[in-house]
Amino acid sequence: MFSPSIQQLIDHLQCLPGVGRKSAQRMAMHLLEREREAGIALAASLQQAMTKVGQCQCCQNFTEDDLCRICADLRRSDDQICVVEGPSDVLAVEQSGVYQGRYFVLMGHLSPIDGIGPSQLGIDKLERLVESGVSEVILATNPTVEGEATARFISEKLERFNVGVSRIAHGVPIGGELEYVDGGTLAHALNSRKSL
Amino acid sequence: MFSPSIQQLIDHLQCLPGVGRKSAQRMAMHLLEREREAGIALAASLQQAMTKVGQCQCCQNFTEDDLCRICADLRRSDDQICVVEGPSDVLAVEQSGVYQGRYFVLMGHLSPIDGIGPSQLGIDKLERLVESGVSEVILATNPTVEGEATARFISEKLERFNVGVSRIAHGVPIGGELEYVDGGTLAHALNSRKSL
Ligand SMILES: [Zn+2]
Ligand SMILES: [Zn+2]
Repeated sequence: MFSPSIQQLIDHLQCLPGVGRKSAQRMAMHLLEREREAGIALAASLQQAMTKVGQCQCCQNFTEDDLCRICADLRRSDDQICVVEGPSDVLAVEQSGVYQGRYFVLMGHLSPIDGIGPSQLGIDKLERLVESGVSEVILATNPTVEGEATARFISEKLERFNVGVSRIAHGVPIGGELEYVDGGTLAHALNSRKSL
Repeated sequence: MFSPSIQQLIDHLQCLPGVGRKSAQRMAMHLLEREREAGIALAASLQQAMTKVGQCQCCQNFTEDDLCRICADLRRSDDQICVVEGPSDVLAVEQSGVYQGRYFVLMGHLSPIDGIGPSQLGIDKLERLVESGVSEVILATNPTVEGEATARFISEKLERFNVGVSRIAHGVPIGGELEYVDGGTLAHALNSRKSL
């Protein structure tokens, strides 16, 4: 019963993750009723991002320039590379405030069943970066089966270089309560306990 | 840490109802990683809807044409007008499958505090429609304080015309919104409407 333009908008809004028919309908009505200017601005920024954003020539993170902001920042240390699965992980590590080195963004993890192997993740590129001179590679892939497998694969690939390879620590979150931590995390935390 | 195009996209996605910073970030990454074509299609349909959609000259519902699909449908009865608060309510009543008349879409409800009075809702227009010959006006505003006040106001305005005025029955939960009610309940509510 919606007119074609509105129905199309409702259909297309459902390409957003977590947005079903009802939410898409509510979003379309909200924009039409109260936020036309914001809707037009969103259309322009969508068009811009979808067509202009590519990947950083150095770290593979999303950027519309040749180099992302971090790779272009001369104040960052060239000595460490933190390997993460995606752009949001870069943001998370940056927000921790304790890291001043570079990143390498895999844009996924090894997943043979989906045809994602080392070359899709740019691991050859990471090797060339390491070869050009880095003292430490920090593997910060997710603590999932796939993330662990990817970290292990990269760590083996880097054995032939004179570089330290580390994995970020996993365990009970600081400030978290033991009783709310899942069994897997707690098992890991117990097994990798450190002598005081 | 996101590049300007991506940050702008994340900012603008937050104009959507129910979308905060974290969801906007996830949406932007999802589109960039896997759904660029869908993102471009969404941009085009947003642009189209925001600039082309106006209101039906007859019932005030959203449409990009002079008349909405329902007002342009010659098979619909001219004898009844169902008054609703918004476009989603039209959809809800249509989905109940028991109504074959016309609609009048207020695009809101009386709300003096927000400067929304009878003329903002087009109630004068509704009166002219009724004057031109209608046998029944069904008031299907939401069963909320504002919706009830709006129904009462319209019912009083229509007293001077030779027209039956009814209110849909309260099978609809008080405090609920029409668009979230299932078709069966809504059909029941329409069928047990009471003459005012
Ligand atoms: Zn970069
Ligand atoms: Zn109409």
